[in-house]
Amino acid sequence: MRMYDLIEKKKHGEELSTEEIRETITSYTAGDIPDYQMSAMTMAVYFRGMSDREIFDLTETMATSGDTVDLSAFGDRSVDKHSTGGVGDKTTLIVTPIVAACGGAVAKMSGRGLGHTGGTVDKLESFPGFRTSLEPAEFIAQVERCGLAVIGQSADLAPADKKLYALRDVTATVDSIPLIASSIMSKKLAAGTHSIVLDVKCGSGAFMRGIDNAVTLAETMVRIGKAHGRNTAAVISNMDRPLGHAIGNASEVCEAMEVLRGAGPDDLREICLTLAAKMVALSCGLTDEQAKETVAETLKSGKALAKFREWIGEQGGDVAYVDDPSLFGEAAYTADVLAPVDGYILACNAEQIGTAAMVLGAGRQTKDSVIDPRAGIYLLKKPADEVKKGDVIARLYTEKADTLPHAEALTLGAVTFTDQPVEEQPLVYRVIS
Amino acid sequence: MRMYDLIEKKKHGEELSTEEIRETITSYTAGDIPDYQMSAMTMAVYFRGMSDREIFDLTETMATSGDTVDLSAFGDRSVDKHSTGGVGDKTTLIVTPIVAACGGAVAKMSGRGLGHTGGTVDKLESFPGFRTSLEPAEFIAQVERCGLAVIGQSADLAPADKKLYALRDVTATVDSIPLIASSIMSKKLAAGTHSIVLDVKCGSGAFMRGIDNAVTLAETMVRIGKAHGRNTAAVISNMDRPLGHAIGNASEVCEAMEVLRGAGPDDLREICLTLAAKMVALSCGLTDEQAKETVAETLKSGKALAKFREWIGEQGGDVAYVDDPSLFGEAAYTADVLAPVDGYILACNAEQIGTAAMVLGAGRQTKDSVIDPRAGIYLLKKPADEVKKGDVIARLYTEKADTLPHAEALTLGAVTFTDQPVEEQPLVYRVIS
Repeated sequence: MRMYDLIEKKKHGEELSTEEIRETITSYTAGDIPDYQMSAMTMAVYFRGMSDREIFDLTETMATSGDTVDLSAFGDRSVDKHSTGGVGDKTTLIVTPIVAACGGAVAKMSGRGLGHTGGTVDKLESFPGFRTSLEPAEFIAQVERCGLAVIGQSADLAPADKKLYALRDVTATVDSIPLIASSIMSKKLAAGTHSIVLDVKCGSGAFMRGIDNAVTLAETMVRIGKAHGRNTAAVISNMDRPLGHAIGNASEVCEAMEVLRGAGPDDLREICLTLAAKMVALSCGLTDEQAKETVAETLKSGKALAKFREWIGEQGGDVAYVDDPSLFGEAAYTADVLAPVDGYILACNAEQIGTAAMVLGAGRQTKDSVIDPRAGIYLLKKPADEVKKGDVIARLYTEKADTLPHAEALTLGAVTFTDQPVEEQPLVYRVIS
Repeated sequence: MRMYDLIEKKKHGEELSTEEIRETITSYTAGDIPDYQMSAMTMAVYFRGMSDREIFDLTETMATSGDTVDLSAFGDRSVDKHSTGGVGDKTTLIVTPIVAACGGAVAKMSGRGLGHTGGTVDKLESFPGFRTSLEPAEFIAQVERCGLAVIGQSADLAPADKKLYALRDVTATVDSIPLIASSIMSKKLAAGTHSIVLDVKCGSGAFMRGIDNAVTLAETMVRIGKAHGRNTAAVISNMDRPLGHAIGNASEVCEAMEVLRGAGPDDLREICLTLAAKMVALSCGLTDEQAKETVAETLKSGKALAKFREWIGEQGGDVAYVDDPSLFGEAAYTADVLAPVDGYILACNAEQIGTAAMVLGAGRQTKDSVIDPRAGIYLLKKPADEVKKGDVIARLYTEKADTLPHAEALTLGAVTFTDQPVEEQPLVYRVIS
């Protein structure tokens, strides 16, 4: 097998065999295929696509390229959730304690934020003492005790995907559905849960801008999961605007706790209930209807909030902050962004809001940036809301006063106004299972 | 300008600006853009193509990336010929002395053979003493004295093309018409002649298999040349079978001298007269009709042969070999390939015959292989010829007896027989100017 011939084959739209895909990925990961051949291959894949069989083989090879997590102790109860990334997306903080309180075993690895999107691990680190890296045995033991643990992704999980993704990231070949789907699912398969619920975002703040692409991606991932014997479902939701009001780290934790207390923004609660119900249905063997009721009851009874408190404590976080969120404190500098006209908010570009939050210190410009837990944006007005000229539409928080002018301009530029009333967009577009 | 954004732009089928193309090529040649980004770009170009403006800019940038030859001393008379490469293609050896004898100034750089195709420089080195590298001043002075010099291509001619081609060669992105056309024409522009005649081969022994692709390539190259102020024309000819009977180095020189003596194979003479007439028309300011007559007269009068002799002597070659070709001698080992059936020859795969000749020692398996001038193949029968079982269809020559079985099998496998008479295919498909 010569890599040249395989590039040629894919370039002409032919299917690569299982053996060819395995050897390509294994040799590339071992450093025996140079980057310049692999990038030509990924660009050919961008244009020619891949068959389901090719996608399954690619996913399998990447999933088994490094460590895999053994969750067999939890039988069918182990469940994971993955979001394709959004702005203000604190759903993991809400959904995982609900599911654990309902009986699911949530053993989750999560990423850090980069660019305009935040990361669950960064948000959890807002709790003083919270440990995001646990030894494998500790991780499993915590899931056994508490039903829930969330840690940073191991460096040895799907190293083939890591290397390939880093190459795609600099060669403009990220946006290929077969490559996105296999990248995400290789990590999910390696992470070992029996059930997987995918939160596929679409819109201005998401990787997938259009609904059609989001559906194709979701369907592809569900097919991959099922082909590998995992219960898999996907929820396609709107990321045309940030989720909830809070974009930041401590502020998102606080907003998540509001939902667990039975309050919080409607859009955030709706997507969380949808995701949690699907995870409970798959991991606890319930019908969708039963799962919805169980989830609603668990939230209402306070069991979900209690589970959240237990979880934070288990991982070393200071639970006093759960009981009294004001302990998180407020950033040193704030500024208000005002509505420049009377009217209605037509749109709020999530990517740009995410970038503004990053500028304020809530996110990472590069991998080595340090996050300020108290930096961020609180959106007081969202699409369809009516505003008067001079109303505060957003409040910015930062530890670095000099970032405010740039963040203000980005935030105001992200919001579009109209003089006509605006119809609310749906939040959950579709559930695929 | 970020290379990432330019790959993205090309991937989406957008046109790159002149500045973007210049900076990409200049930075890549300087080592500031990594191979893995450039190979993603060339694969995107393979799928998306390039506009004429992009192709002209790419060609210009590569042409001026290193040394350029100043032939202004020859005014409009300087002329070059380029062949896209074939098997048994000794046209340069015949055409250049004809054109020089007619008054054209032929200052030509030529390549070495690799794989199944031969190289003019290798063939000329069959003459003991022939020097294929001359200092620039020597090269120009020889063209002034004799009207003709052929040397190996300078390493500093279009280095950007050299680097890009080497990358394309290992990433399956050679067969993109915009990239082939700009690669060839960048070297022709740098080589400095006022007129350029392109011999574009199509068929089993050529890079372009189909006539449509060959026409597109030829038209693209002619547009590039004209856009850069060069008189440019192209001849599209059949390379479904080897040209002439001889495939090798000394043997091709001998066959070329037969044509210059007024004999030789019909197909070879026809393509040479066509190419020479076009070169004379462009470089001497004649109509096609006048040029044809001048060329025929020059060949008939013996002036072309005399010019050939003068040229070989000028470059240090032993002219005794021109006067007595038997001095070239014969290879140590020969074998005959016999017709296995009665019938007609339907086809003779030129690439495979070229590979057989390479195996015998006439060509290079790798860049470092050493050529045996006397190794090669003499085809006694060609497509449309009638054969009887046991007739010699080809004679193989080599200095290494152990290569004969493999070369015999390749040669016999290259020939297809039929029991029905076969119609002769045309040799020259089209002239584009």
